[in-house]
Amino acid sequence: MIFRILIDGDWREAAGTRETFKAVNPATLEPLPGEYPVSGRSDIEAALEAALPAVDRLRTAGPDTVAAFLEAFAAAAEARRDDLFETARLETALPVEPRLRSVEFPRLADQVRQAAEACRDRSWCRAVIDSARNIRSRLGPLGGPVVVFSPNNFPFAFNAVGGGDWATALAAGNPVISKANPAHPGTTRILAEAARDAAHRTGLPRGAVQLLYHFEPGDGLGLVAHPAVGASAFTGSRPAGLRLKEAADRAGKPIYLEMASVNPVFLLPEGLKERPSGIAAELFASCLLGAGQFCTKPGLVVLIESASGREFLAAVKAAFEKAEPGYLLTPGILDGLEAASRRLRDFKAELLTGGRRLPGPGLRFTPTLFRVSGSAFLMNPAAFQAESFGSLSLVVAARDPLEMLDIAAMLEGQLTATVYSHSAGEDDRLYDSLEPILRRKAGRLLNDRMPTGVTVSPAMNHGGPFPAAGHPGFTSVGIPAAMPRFAALQCYDNVRPGRLPAELRDRNPTGKMWRFIDGAWTQRSL
Amino acid sequence: MIFRILIDGDWREAAGTRETFKAVNPATLEPLPGEYPVSGRSDIEAALEAALPAVDRLRTAGPDTVAAFLEAFAAAAEARRDDLFETARLETALPVEPRLRSVEFPRLADQVRQAAEACRDRSWCRAVIDSARNIRSRLGPLGGPVVVFSPNNFPFAFNAVGGGDWATALAAGNPVISKANPAHPGTTRILAEAARDAAHRTGLPRGAVQLLYHFEPGDGLGLVAHPAVGASAFTGSRPAGLRLKEAADRAGKPIYLEMASVNPVFLLPEGLKERPSGIAAELFASCLLGAGQFCTKPGLVVLIESASGREFLAAVKAAFEKAEPGYLLTPGILDGLEAASRRLRDFKAELLTGGRRLPGPGLRFTPTLFRVSGSAFLMNPAAFQAESFGSLSLVVAARDPLEMLDIAAMLEGQLTATVYSHSAGEDDRLYDSLEPILRRKAGRLLNDRMPTGVTVSPAMNHGGPFPAAGHPGFTSVGIPAAMPRFAALQCYDNVRPGRLPAELRDRNPTGKMWRFIDGAWTQRSL
Repeated sequence: MIFRILIDGDWREAAGTRETFKAVNPATLEPLPGEYPVSGRSDIEAALEAALPAVDRLRTAGPDTVAAFLEAFAAAAEARRDDLFETARLETALPVEPRLRSVEFPRLADQVRQAAEACRDRSWCRAVIDSARNIRSRLGPLGGPVVVFSPNNFPFAFNAVGGGDWATALAAGNPVISKANPAHPGTTRILAEAARDAAHRTGLPRGAVQLLYHFEPGDGLGLVAHPAVGASAFTGSRPAGLRLKEAADRAGKPIYLEMASVNPVFLLPEGLKERPSGIAAELFASCLLGAGQFCTKPGLVVLIESASGREFLAAVKAAFEKAEPGYLLTPGILDGLEAASRRLRDFKAELLTGGRRLPGPGLRFTPTLFRVSGSAFLMNPAAFQAESFGSLSLVVAARDPLEMLDIAAMLEGQLTATVYSHSAGEDDRLYDSLEPILRRKAGRLLNDRMPTGVTVSPAMNHGGPFPAAGHPGFTSVGIPAAMPRFAALQCYDNVRPGRLPAELRDRNPTGKMWRFIDGAWTQRSL
Repeated sequence: MIFRILIDGDWREAAGTRETFKAVNPATLEPLPGEYPVSGRSDIEAALEAALPAVDRLRTAGPDTVAAFLEAFAAAAEARRDDLFETARLETALPVEPRLRSVEFPRLADQVRQAAEACRDRSWCRAVIDSARNIRSRLGPLGGPVVVFSPNNFPFAFNAVGGGDWATALAAGNPVISKANPAHPGTTRILAEAARDAAHRTGLPRGAVQLLYHFEPGDGLGLVAHPAVGASAFTGSRPAGLRLKEAADRAGKPIYLEMASVNPVFLLPEGLKERPSGIAAELFASCLLGAGQFCTKPGLVVLIESASGREFLAAVKAAFEKAEPGYLLTPGILDGLEAASRRLRDFKAELLTGGRRLPGPGLRFTPTLFRVSGSAFLMNPAAFQAESFGSLSLVVAARDPLEMLDIAAMLEGQLTATVYSHSAGEDDRLYDSLEPILRRKAGRLLNDRMPTGVTVSPAMNHGGPFPAAGHPGFTSVGIPAAMPRFAALQCYDNVRPGRLPAELRDRNPTGKMWRFIDGAWTQRSL
């Protein structure tokens, strides 16, 4: 049985499918029931054709309809909760508790409801009114569908249906074409079923929510560059992201990429002396979360060679050794960890623990810790800061504070950079030298907290300078912060009052939308 | 005598200059006194080397210093007013009155002072505070210099020194490396002298303001892709813009492009019937402004074949014929107009008036109007919507309203789209069909007003979908609207209070900065 794709409001057979794929349980390597189609160009064209009229229909339907849809979707997904947990567990081998049921699914539902609220509230669109000159502007829909490519590591929170990109692209008024991640097509299918039902119940225009399971890489390049597309969002590996970026850039199409990073954690000497075992426990927990398959996993830890550094390392090593290795999502991740271990050994990093594939049938790798001197790192900074997706981290032991600063200066763009320091300020001089370097390298700077938690906050930045992300001005997590990615700046110059969108008319459309009128933010009408 | 370049706070000889160029008076084709160096890579490297320490020094100096500098610069430029008018007149042949003295120079000074005010006010940085979770973010400097490439058509308002990109990049806290436009190097030199004096007087860090006059195109590609660069801003021709975009994109460096467009003006039938001669006069004035050398010049006028349309066209034609042709800025523009005239003739457009180069010595072309049928346009939409920089416009006569909509649908991304319609709503049904098409094609939508005026308003959008601009979410005119181009989103997660930038501390740093705190915009402290 070949599952159907969701096009123009209905489930239909993929056209002329020659190829299919099956979901695989990473804990057993057994294929799961059913086959999913690898779509050809005709399916992609069908999705685009259905999305174009949805652009105008969404505009007519308005934000209240989209908000109602998002809320109905959250409820529909909650109604299918048990199905979702079971399917996601089989497809990802992630534990239902605590991960899927208590953390990731509530995050999906919360995020979608936040997007609904932001959609209804409308403040996200940054309406600006210059009343004296009758010039008005706001962020508005892109005029074409948003294509969402989702990663393998979050079957709920970053799913191509129901995840953050999907919810914010819709909340900004755009149709979405979702491409499932082939590591969890069944989870995506159930979420899309919930979405279709919610769409029918709330009158969301057909073609606003569509799903393809897979297509050839070349067809993906064609899609992000297609003249009819508004923008694309991609979360995943750097090589795939860079290929999509090149295709989209050449066509002048916006693409937002979250390509991960090594998320350096700097342990300043007095802070490390103050509580080596506490920091070791936090680092361990952060590195092993989801078997290290987080884009914000601390992959690089920088400390200064010292007795407390050695004590710290021993504690981390002991924790890694005792840890139960989690399952990896795909064979490619396992191969990547083996390759990374070889590369680090080739470059003379010292293996402290791990570095081995575990006997099957499941996909597992021993939690792995490498160590290298600061001077060795500085001789090959590119090799030592390549991301290893999974539970593998590298500790860099600097000779002194100056070498620590040199290491920081060699880092490429990161999602996060973290500094642990002495609670009473004994590291502050070093912090003051280190901070300006890290600030320009990372989207999010943390103190005394590991980077793996990416809170859905309006102040969050899950993004950063290239190559961590494609543009340093945007975040892919946080509502309404993530919404402007999927919008164009639309100015109305001397446009007659009755022709303005509701957000720019004199009367505040909700009575509480925030607008920047004549130099001040206000909720009042003009 | 070879003029010096401004590097690291001082005027110095360009290193190893083999090539130089001279400014030329477009009204006489006589070269003006002095030679300007074409910089090689060593000058570019010197500018980058000086800019890097300026990144940190600007951070330390803070926004008040930058604001004081910008204000001192405006005053210093005003003190050199007469020099500036005379030099700009000689280099561009633009009239001192009304253009240079009463319009463009006041705009430069006003824009720079607005940028100073925005810089001091700090609201532009969109500080967001989530106090419950202690996550805070704002837009902050890019961590590398901004490279500004300026166009030939505005010796003051868009100058690489003193123009909008320069002022907003500095106000956002970045050093700037300016590349003069070779059409007015002397004007740029005087502005840079004013900037250097203002920098010395106000303690702006050395290396924050630098000037190169020219370099080889390949060196420009290397510069926008240089790892040390923060971002680039380019205003100019599409071919040059696309080459820079490709280089910057490949390196993952933001680049903001304003590549102009044909700025379609749609004249709806009842509006045209209502006041054919009034609209003709407005169109004529807009097309001929600055000899048509505006990026928002109406290059394409779409109307419906009718008696009032013919009356309108006769009035425009008569006005064009009586007009005194202005001087063109460069020989390339004159060649471009000749080539465009040939191309339009080849595609069977009808020449209504103009189409001839005028006898020298100055660079002049007769104001030119072509006409083509809607069906002919639809057969070759790409050829008929290529921009002709200078006073050349094409009128497209559609058979009926549906053909007008088809023409709109074939337009590529535009800076502006304009609709004139009946004052009492007789065209409203057609407007309602046309507007959604134009809205997604253009950054700025106008009613009953020609697009050439680009007011410096916080609500302005001088940008639009590709290929009018490089990204649909940003404007290059408008303060503070244009500033976020030159900023990165910087999140502080659990960062200790004393380590936060002033904009994100509990206490409002100015007492009146707007911040988004726990879901509401406020000027209060936390």
